[in-house]
Amino acid sequence: MAIPMRLRAFSSSASAPKWEGGVSMVQGASRGIGLEFVRQLLEKNEKGHVIATCRDPAKATVLLELKNRFAERLNVLPLDVTVESTIEESARSITESYGSLNLLINASGILSIPGVLQPETTLTKVQKSSMMLAYEVNAVGPILVIKNLVFKFSFFFPACVDPLERYMLLIFGDTCVTEMHMWPLLRVGGGLGTERDVAVVANVSARVGSIGDNRLGGWHSYRASKAALNQLTKTISVEFGRKKDPVACILLHPGTVDTDLSRPFQRNVPAEKLFTKEFSVQKLLNIINNTKQQDNGKFFAWDGQEIPW
Amino acid sequence: MAIPMRLRAFSSSASAPKWEGGVSMVQGASRGIGLEFVRQLLEKNEKGHVIATCRDPAKATVLLELKNRFAERLNVLPLDVTVESTIEESARSITESYGSLNLLINASGILSIPGVLQPETTLTKVQKSSMMLAYEVNAVGPILVIKNLVFKFSFFFPACVDPLERYMLLIFGDTCVTEMHMWPLLRVGGGLGTERDVAVVANVSARVGSIGDNRLGGWHSYRASKAALNQLTKTISVEFGRKKDPVACILLHPGTVDTDLSRPFQRNVPAEKLFTKEFSVQKLLNIINNTKQQDNGKFFAWDGQEIPW
Repeated sequence: MAIPMRLRAFSSSASAPKWEGGVSMVQGASRGIGLEFVRQLLEKNEKGHVIATCRDPAKATVLLELKNRFAERLNVLPLDVTVESTIEESARSITESYGSLNLLINASGILSIPGVLQPETTLTKVQKSSMMLAYEVNAVGPILVIKNLVFKFSFFFPACVDPLERYMLLIFGDTCVTEMHMWPLLRVGGGLGTERDVAVVANVSARVGSIGDNRLGGWHSYRASKAALNQLTKTISVEFGRKKDPVACILLHPGTVDTDLSRPFQRNVPAEKLFTKEFSVQKLLNIINNTKQQDNGKFFAWDGQEIPW
Repeated sequence: MAIPMRLRAFSSSASAPKWEGGVSMVQGASRGIGLEFVRQLLEKNEKGHVIATCRDPAKATVLLELKNRFAERLNVLPLDVTVESTIEESARSITESYGSLNLLINASGILSIPGVLQPETTLTKVQKSSMMLAYEVNAVGPILVIKNLVFKFSFFFPACVDPLERYMLLIFGDTCVTEMHMWPLLRVGGGLGTERDVAVVANVSARVGSIGDNRLGGWHSYRASKAALNQLTKTISVEFGRKKDPVACILLHPGTVDTDLSRPFQRNVPAEKLFTKEFSVQKLLNIINNTKQQDNGKFFAWDGQEIPW
């Protein structure tokens, strides 16, 4: 019985498919920091492949311009973190097109939506609907992306494995199936094709998510959602670490960056502390490119300093 | 124009209504730690008044037994943290019956519900519905209670203030209204009638909510909700502190206590680390009774040790 190519790829990292320059995914890539990550990943690594996802690619005009420029090195997919079926569909597509991943950046996030969500200046203004929405998008969303990208691979097996092999997988029992299918995309990817030893999951968090650093108060919905994202990322990093997979999961604080997200709140930011997207992403990519296994579970600011929880 | 009694009470803490022994509220009081808080607060302070809330008082048999025993010193009210109207109704009732509060304990919380919510052993088992539910109950719920109890008082004014006075309140503008109505119940209460200098808001959190202390991973929904509760409590404490109100907001870790919540997960807990409700609540009340203004925003374990964020 021949073992299909894909199954063999998982049995040993030595035989894993290697994409020269690596494969990166940026979730939340239509604008702001996410879009800038896509641009720099493509411009600075002439062999790298990038999967850029956003809710509505048809409206992401700058992203589509990049698609014209970089052709097959850029793959744009629809993904809405609040609709899990779109995450599953992206995972399926990436698995079939690439089979491995070296970098996942979760860049999506919400802070304010006129008429819907507004950063709270006092507890009196806290609304349950805002709290739930910020949590759904900023904390749960990225975690569902990681779950679906690195865990759900087993769901694709039945279609690509012949009946006898599927039966053998089943009789090996749970342990074996877990062992074979855990973290497949990132595990297969590891650092292959990049200058790192590990694949990286980078969740874009924010310093205001730090509890220990919270001196100003306010922004209840956003702060709580980012603190939860930090806790979830730490929780996942423990699982990565325990399985000794070649994957490190980190949190990033980009600084206050001149984007649509921060624009309504830039008034009190000193000019020298308001970064361009280009500067912030350059710094963050530097951190990502230098990530080592022992950085798994850490929370870094743009300048490489660790931020307290 | 005579200033109504209630308005005068807010204008100076010296004229605030004083309930000898103080007024405490325990939210989530039908069982477990919450119920034990009610019992000890009533037994250890023979003049203290307690408001105990739970989703369905008619089914809270032990609480109703306490009601028989302590009569008018115990007031049982329905409150479901997921239904904000029930929180508002409780706030209205407490405001009318007591007018001040010295202690608010948010003791409700969920960890597992058979068939609905199960602490996750791996990221593969994380479900969006579980994440949202744990967040709604464990993080958003307590915050909405604090908001409604300490902020919403202005909603009751129109009924108890005569039209001319209401007009004067309105023409003073937002600032004055905020100044007069901020934190009314707890602000009026402060430490009056107790041995403390401050009113206390105590949110029952858990060590597994600590990000810095997270070494085992798992329990994603619960960990994230408690980390968010910690962040929200810290955020609120900043606002308390800035207004220099006689109120301190703290977080408590009760240890692993033998309750319905922990029962399915006690297998690996050494006997000496599994506390009785009586022991844990005795320790926590000791912390609460010794809370000072400078403890505002801190996270304490049952033994008084601070827990990292």
